[in-house]
Amino acid sequence: MADLFWPGDERAGSHFTTEDFLGAMLAVEEEWLGAEVGWVVDAHDVALEAESGGNPVIPLVKRIRETYPNAHRGLTSQDVVDSALMRMAESAVTTLRRDLATVVRRLADLAEAHRDTPMVARTLTQHAVPTTFGFRVAAWLTAVLDADDDLARLAFPQQLGGAAGTRAAIVELGREVPAGVPRWHTTRAPVTRLGDALAGCTDACARIANDVVTMSRPEIGELAEGSGGGSSTMPNKANPTLSVLVRRAALTTPQLAATLHLAAAQQVDDRADGGWHAEWATLRDLVRRTLVAASQTATLVADLRVDADRMAATLAAAGEAVLAEQRSMTDDPAPTYFGDAGAYVDHVVARAKGSLG
Amino acid sequence: MADLFWPGDERAGSHFTTEDFLGAMLAVEEEWLGAEVGWVVDAHDVALEAESGGNPVIPLVKRIRETYPNAHRGLTSQDVVDSALMRMAESAVTTLRRDLATVVRRLADLAEAHRDTPMVARTLTQHAVPTTFGFRVAAWLTAVLDADDDLARLAFPQQLGGAAGTRAAIVELGREVPAGVPRWHTTRAPVTRLGDALAGCTDACARIANDVVTMSRPEIGELAEGSGGGSSTMPNKANPTLSVLVRRAALTTPQLAATLHLAAAQQVDDRADGGWHAEWATLRDLVRRTLVAASQTATLVADLRVDADRMAATLAAAGEAVLAEQRSMTDDPAPTYFGDAGAYVDHVVARAKGSLG
Amino acid sequence: MADLFWPGDERAGSHFTTEDFLGAMLAVEEEWLGAEVGWVVDAHDVALEAESGGNPVIPLVKRIRETYPNAHRGLTSQDVVDSALMRMAESAVTTLRRDLATVVRRLADLAEAHRDTPMVARTLTQHAVPTTFGFRVAAWLTAVLDADDDLARLAFPQQLGGAAGTRAAIVELGREVPAGVPRWHTTRAPVTRLGDALAGCTDACARIANDVVTMSRPEIGELAEGSGGGSSTMPNKANPTLSVLVRRAALTTPQLAATLHLAAAQQVDDRADGGWHAEWATLRDLVRRTLVAASQTATLVADLRVDADRMAATLAAAGEAVLAEQRSMTDDPAPTYFGDAGAYVDHVVARAKGSLG
Amino acid sequence: MADLFWPGDERAGSHFTTEDFLGAMLAVEEEWLGAEVGWVVDAHDVALEAESGGNPVIPLVKRIRETYPNAHRGLTSQDVVDSALMRMAESAVTTLRRDLATVVRRLADLAEAHRDTPMVARTLTQHAVPTTFGFRVAAWLTAVLDADDDLARLAFPQQLGGAAGTRAAIVELGREVPAGVPRWHTTRAPVTRLGDALAGCTDACARIANDVVTMSRPEIGELAEGSGGGSSTMPNKANPTLSVLVRRAALTTPQLAATLHLAAAQQVDDRADGGWHAEWATLRDLVRRTLVAASQTATLVADLRVDADRMAATLAAAGEAVLAEQRSMTDDPAPTYFGDAGAYVDHVVARAKGSLG
Repeated sequence: MADLFWPGDERAGSHFTTEDFLGAMLAVEEEWLGAEVGWVVDAHDVALEAESGGNPVIPLVKRIRETYPNAHRGLTSQDVVDSALMRMAESAVTTLRRDLATVVRRLADLAEAHRDTPMVARTLTQHAVPTTFGFRVAAWLTAVLDADDDLARLAFPQQLGGAAGTRAAIVELGREVPAGVPRWHTTRAPVTRLGDALAGCTDACARIANDVVTMSRPEIGELAEGSGGGSSTMPNKANPTLSVLVRRAALTTPQLAATLHLAAAQQVDDRADGGWHAEWATLRDLVRRTLVAASQTATLVADLRVDADRMAATLAAAGEAVLAEQRSMTDDPAPTYFGDAGAYVDHVVARAKGSLG
Repeated sequence: MADLFWPGDERAGSHFTTEDFLGAMLAVEEEWLGAEVGWVVDAHDVALEAESGGNPVIPLVKRIRETYPNAHRGLTSQDVVDSALMRMAESAVTTLRRDLATVVRRLADLAEAHRDTPMVARTLTQHAVPTTFGFRVAAWLTAVLDADDDLARLAFPQQLGGAAGTRAAIVELGREVPAGVPRWHTTRAPVTRLGDALAGCTDACARIANDVVTMSRPEIGELAEGSGGGSSTMPNKANPTLSVLVRRAALTTPQLAATLHLAAAQQVDDRADGGWHAEWATLRDLVRRTLVAASQTATLVADLRVDADRMAATLAAAGEAVLAEQRSMTDDPAPTYFGDAGAYVDHVVARAKGSLG
Repeated sequence: MADLFWPGDERAGSHFTTEDFLGAMLAVEEEWLGAEVGWVVDAHDVALEAESGGNPVIPLVKRIRETYPNAHRGLTSQDVVDSALMRMAESAVTTLRRDLATVVRRLADLAEAHRDTPMVARTLTQHAVPTTFGFRVAAWLTAVLDADDDLARLAFPQQLGGAAGTRAAIVELGREVPAGVPRWHTTRAPVTRLGDALAGCTDACARIANDVVTMSRPEIGELAEGSGGGSSTMPNKANPTLSVLVRRAALTTPQLAATLHLAAAQQVDDRADGGWHAEWATLRDLVRRTLVAASQTATLVADLRVDADRMAATLAAAGEAVLAEQRSMTDDPAPTYFGDAGAYVDHVVARAKGSLG
Repeated sequence: MADLFWPGDERAGSHFTTEDFLGAMLAVEEEWLGAEVGWVVDAHDVALEAESGGNPVIPLVKRIRETYPNAHRGLTSQDVVDSALMRMAESAVTTLRRDLATVVRRLADLAEAHRDTPMVARTLTQHAVPTTFGFRVAAWLTAVLDADDDLARLAFPQQLGGAAGTRAAIVELGREVPAGVPRWHTTRAPVTRLGDALAGCTDACARIANDVVTMSRPEIGELAEGSGGGSSTMPNKANPTLSVLVRRAALTTPQLAATLHLAAAQQVDDRADGGWHAEWATLRDLVRRTLVAASQTATLVADLRVDADRMAATLAAAGEAVLAEQRSMTDDPAPTYFGDAGAYVDHVVARAKGSLG
């Protein structure tokens, strides 16, 4: 069901839905069990029973054990929930990076196409000096590439420790544990790093969207969304709707990432008394909103309309004031107003192409 | 559908669900139209079309106008969304205050019953001086009463301004607007006050839950949840599950309330370019989590088991050290160790009874 | 010392400085002692000794007791710190409300002066319908009045409970406690309400600043700060510096207010084990930044330059499109484009005058 | 001056003080100028003049140019502020990692010493199964090593772009720019990554402190701070003060890191209109609090008192219940209660030693 409170939510597909979560937990149990359970659990019923133990694993295991009495033997709830979260996260990040790659490809083309398109630079909202639109796009591209670098570094570890992390039951049962499986029941860097990287993605998307909402103001008119959104009462209006929705996301994700840190900082004993439980829905919202924002950004940049004439006109109208700094540097009557902007565009485009492989 | 990522979510019932939102928007439109639309809109379809205009009103109005071409005339999308949010909020706060009243009633009884039950006070985790359990419950009660006071002060205004708030179309159409209907399209105190008050509720619930998780540690054992939650692998374990879940909520709601402030601080022009859109889901999560936390707290305190003997034993075992401060104040061999704790309990209980009417 | 990391910090004067805090704690001790200590404590030395007990009261009392051995008798550290924080807060809020009153006075004048100044309304950054600048100022005014209403409701209670809140020592010593002094050692509504109200103030100030940064873009040019800020390299640039600095504040205060809620939600036992300690610097930053933002807003609106001709020109240039909605409502060739905007301005101005007394 | 509002602040030394900031900016200007300015600027005066241009560079350059008229030529304010912040950050992170190395060294020793010290594991506050204290320390160590890994990955780039990033003036002046100097005026990953890594450090420190406050409760008594903090009224009390102060920090830093993301997501044009300005004080507080927390943690673990007898007694008293899970796995009358805990300790200790080089 698409989310009426978050227009565009359907772009996140089935990532981190209730069904996805249930499926991922089931897959963890099946892998441990070495058998395919092969039937469908009613998610609503499991959810209704989740409160009494504080997590959904207990009612899920109860159902699986009706057929497989040895299921879950040696595991603890947190092994299953954490492993499931990481499976879902890995899949979501793969999708996310694909969308970012689309953004990167389009921005690289745009930067090259407008490598030498003059426009006025603006600092603190005011006209500053000449620049190029390609240089601006290179900044957008840098933001996205930086965000993607952080995603590329993420790990999605399994969780496997048993009742209190010591694997006592697992050892007793003689089960092999693959070498290198870490234990992070009460040390949550895998979660906070994921949250931070996702917030970095919405930062990058908002970086682009901010320029679009500004530059598509009718008084500026240098950019426009391909198909502006309508109004319920003013039929001729074309709003930069995608940019607005991307900006919306970026107003919410940093606090979600902060919640993951706060939860991590509440870890105590061998299993947290609230900090762990606060992660699940927070991560869900953070992942889905980032997926939506990246997908909206991909649409936004794919259809972006660039008015190079208007850019040139604005720069011309800005007149002598924006040339003053450069003139003060030299007696040359025709100084190089664009510095090494072109070379920088080339450099960032090369980085983009490197990242696309 | 109960939310697998937030055990206990079903306690929030239908407040701020997709259906609730759609129904509230429809009710706003019907009231303005002066007619009952009388059919059911498919929420999923509306949600799927919400992205293009950035909000769900445009596709909703499109459907209503198939039957009532004059529907929505004079309104703007924000009039409908904001009025719907406030209707839902008013209903949710009514439910919430009913749950808090249940908590208040139970805590008042508990405070009276344990007005003179001795226990050791703890500061910075260490034994300090003697106190009573009734005095502790009076603190819990104060927290809840303070939170309820803030809820009681909330207003849930309609929103009615038309395209840019001036009511130009409304005036032209000759529609009467009730006196005193404010306009808050870009000044969001009604939303931030609501968010702050809700965060205040989870603060109060967590205040109680923190003591329960602490005092139900087996080494302390002075409190226990009525029916502790189970473990997926350790059958005899009785976890303070409700308290853990309440603590979970309170780790997340302050950042949601902060998001509402950040959104308010982004208001610009006659309609925000992202700040408004960030409110809806944030408010939904804040409301539902607070409802769940209050309901869980009501269950928690209803079933709370108090071990007065254990309290007495702990105090006795703490020995002379916790009497030292009081002894240093007087030569009296039997000083008043409990100060005016009893009178304070009476005072807070009277306040509780006053609030219950 | 002015804060190089927060330009404009000096506007907050001595509120919540180290000296102010020390002085307020000393005043609390003196009042309880019934004597003037009458000498100056070295703040740096006290601060250096504060870590070992976790708060600055212990080293302060040690110094006072060199002269007055009975000082602090019956009190606990938290009584002194909390009472001192509330004294400082009350004084700061008085200053803050004075600055807001200046803003209100100026905005009321501005709203009246521009009650009928036509401009184009903008929604989602695009031209919408006609409005007036007075109507816009009425929105600013509403934001500030709402914020001030929340400040007006604040209470600044003393704290007085002794070692664990029971007043055991105080009763033993036979000290009178004024009726109605509450105890809020572990129930922090007085702190969270203060934080929320302060965040509401920066929301309101940012509401104004956002419009100024937008409308002072050279392509729009309808507003300008009285004396724009300079650039280190471009001498002719006039930046909307005050607006930028106000927006800065509002990006930080909601998370500070959230920290106060998180701290409140960590209260446990009879004294928190970290939640209390997190409040002091958080409150200091929140108070000072809000004072700075309000003062900067007062300067900003006092010197604001309004270009009514440019507003008229923009509206004219927007042409038929922005008249379309109104035309669709009526056959009247000269419809009322401004609705009841003028009456709304009058209403808000009257509210402002009422608030100024 | 030590900060009375943040006991222990002096542990952060001169990192990110006003003097440090001024010195770092001066160093950036000197390096660009190729000359030593060689005199001291009054920080207070510079700060007082910082508001009008919105940042401290303009008044600083004015002073430098009294002697060196060509100073700052080709630079923009943001080049200087950002480069200075990164210099300070690099130095602070070096100090921080040194403190973390001290923590790592001590924890590795502690883990080895208590590799086989039995204690009871606790999940959701309740006794679960047997574990070892060494295994617990291995979790602490993992948290710190993960945090340090993130610090190790940080980069501290210069900023060098001139008025709008294009280096137009720099090229015109014929100045060489070292290859590989990035431009990040409006893409703030260097800042948000720093913030996230710092929040990760306080998460790790709080992970340890939470266990200490819990396990040093008198009813548990398995750990104690070396020299507990005193009380202003109860002389015999020994509070886990350092742990409390570390927990304090971790309640505040995630929201500071979130502020850096929010600021990054506000970047627009060629220089942000508020987002940039919000970073400086936020970063200062985040850096200093993390330094203080890490230093306090180093003291805390250095002096930590471990009561292995009490741990053994608690485990014995927990009785059969905590052995039930393991017994259910096997018919072996003497099962392996500690699983591979010892091997895990060895593994984490080896990782620690590797990190120490």
